[in-house]
Amino acid sequence: MIADKLVTRMLAGDRYALAKLITLVENRHPDTVAILSRVHPRCGRAYVIGVTGPPGAGKSTLVDQLVGLLRQREHSVGIVAVDPSSPFSGGAVLGDRIRMQRHFIDEQVFIRSLSTRGSHGGLARATRNVVQLLDAFGKDYILIETVGVGQTELDVMRVAETTIVVLVPEAGDTVQTMKAGLLEIADIFVVNKADREGALRIKTELELMLQLRQATPWIIPVLLTEAQNGRGIAELLETLSQHRRFWEAREHGAAHAAARQEEFLAVLREEIGRRLEEGVDNGALASVLQQVRQGEVDPYRAALQLIDDERSMRAVLGRPTPRASD
Amino acid sequence: MIADKLVTRMLAGDRYALAKLITLVENRHPDTVAILSRVHPRCGRAYVIGVTGPPGAGKSTLVDQLVGLLRQREHSVGIVAVDPSSPFSGGAVLGDRIRMQRHFIDEQVFIRSLSTRGSHGGLARATRNVVQLLDAFGKDYILIETVGVGQTELDVMRVAETTIVVLVPEAGDTVQTMKAGLLEIADIFVVNKADREGALRIKTELELMLQLRQATPWIIPVLLTEAQNGRGIAELLETLSQHRRFWEAREHGAAHAAARQEEFLAVLREEIGRRLEEGVDNGALASVLQQVRQGEVDPYRAALQLIDDERSMRAVLGRPTPRASD
Repeated sequence: MIADKLVTRMLAGDRYALAKLITLVENRHPDTVAILSRVHPRCGRAYVIGVTGPPGAGKSTLVDQLVGLLRQREHSVGIVAVDPSSPFSGGAVLGDRIRMQRHFIDEQVFIRSLSTRGSHGGLARATRNVVQLLDAFGKDYILIETVGVGQTELDVMRVAETTIVVLVPEAGDTVQTMKAGLLEIADIFVVNKADREGALRIKTELELMLQLRQATPWIIPVLLTEAQNGRGIAELLETLSQHRRFWEAREHGAAHAAARQEEFLAVLREEIGRRLEEGVDNGALASVLQQVRQGEVDPYRAALQLIDDERSMRAVLGRPTPRASD
Repeated sequence: MIADKLVTRMLAGDRYALAKLITLVENRHPDTVAILSRVHPRCGRAYVIGVTGPPGAGKSTLVDQLVGLLRQREHSVGIVAVDPSSPFSGGAVLGDRIRMQRHFIDEQVFIRSLSTRGSHGGLARATRNVVQLLDAFGKDYILIETVGVGQTELDVMRVAETTIVVLVPEAGDTVQTMKAGLLEIADIFVVNKADREGALRIKTELELMLQLRQATPWIIPVLLTEAQNGRGIAELLETLSQHRRFWEAREHGAAHAAARQEEFLAVLREEIGRRLEEGVDNGALASVLQQVRQGEVDPYRAALQLIDDERSMRAVLGRPTPRASD
């Protein structure tokens, strides 16, 4: 496969090869599965942290400060900034990226933006795979930051071991109408811009709400930060370490087994989908497609018949796969 | 299949059967494909209109007024209100549904809310399928309203033949940072709450922007409405009719062939995915899953090997399918 040399170079520490591989994986190049298979033995060392919250909460500044502190302590860091490209998200993305520039020249910080390309659900998968590449590359910490707060972002956050949800004191109403999804993914709440009025009130409200619904052994903490001037960042990092230890002690094995199974099923689905699309392009599906397009057979019946027909399915699925050398 | 009688009753005009079928399809009941196959011959009559735009633009009021006018003219209407359940979307949804109540008692108006359940991309597919059920049921007009404006909503909007993007005069900044996605899906722009300051300015800005990038034969119109008091609604309906005629004259055949092919491929993917999940539950994948979970084989290699192994794939795919009687 064309990516074989890139993987070798990336695993030897070549940042440029890493960047190229991320591009291949992001665009779901046919070699994607083979690339991931090859880096897989090197994965599992990094600590993956997700940062989400509504626009304007100061996520990027918080990430920036966290990275600063991690670099002081000589950890290497990867940052994946995920933008699901809401057409109304405005100019936030560009501004966020600009703010991050003080780490751009640091060789130990690898920053990558991902945005929606191609199909649904692709973004969460692409994020997971980019994290795997950064992990195999040897990053100690990987931070995933999402710009928005929709379903896509929630899916993306599931890639993280610890998820930080960032709010601001003005988010009072937001908290009350917050849906279950966000509470479920939060491991740590941060009330940022805590010098503003209402910070303590929202902290209390959150703690109360969390007490009411909490039945898990990890007590979700609510921290106050002022990311702009670095206040509360060291405490946040300490809480992250606590959650990491908690997570590794309790859920690590089971979560990893579940993640592997999920990855296996996702790859199955994606690879089958890819071969179906190849079948559209290379003519393996030509006759049934023509019938469907002309309305001679309804698309539902045609699909079921194809799946049930052993020879046709083999014709679609059976072509040789690009694969890493064993 | 259990849904067989429901389909017969639905096609005979039973609203309750329609509601039950929508629930089955929304939850991706195993009979979903069979249901859609049976209603397919009755589809293709309805005119499907999408309404989207940022929160607070007055979409629901606009839809409500459109429905009122359509009912005056004795058309039957289906409404699909799609809520991608952003955890920060707040209380808007409930309010919108309440506003719609004046049509709740009208037997010729069928209203259904859809929200995110299950996996990525499922919402656009579920919306398309619910529209098909409403179409087969005999609705003349089907309106799809989305609450938000993210990627999911854009995908949902592709189900519509005509898409209305609703803005308000205050959206000036929004317009300037608007990403390509929204411009691509808009067939008609509506500046609602046009009695407010800036309405004409935003109309002019939009028209200018549209002129700059437009290379299509349909000139995207920018209309002014005051949905609250019904102003501009008749003109909007007239413009909708124009777009429908334009669309049917030009793109109808090709678009339908493309839609059928897309549906065929989507059903293929979904049905294969469903059978894979069945394989997880019923043990057909037990041995490979155990190896993957315990880390004995990496998930990527395991997936490729399974696809390439004819007998294993047949074991997973080959079980009899629930199917409509011919």
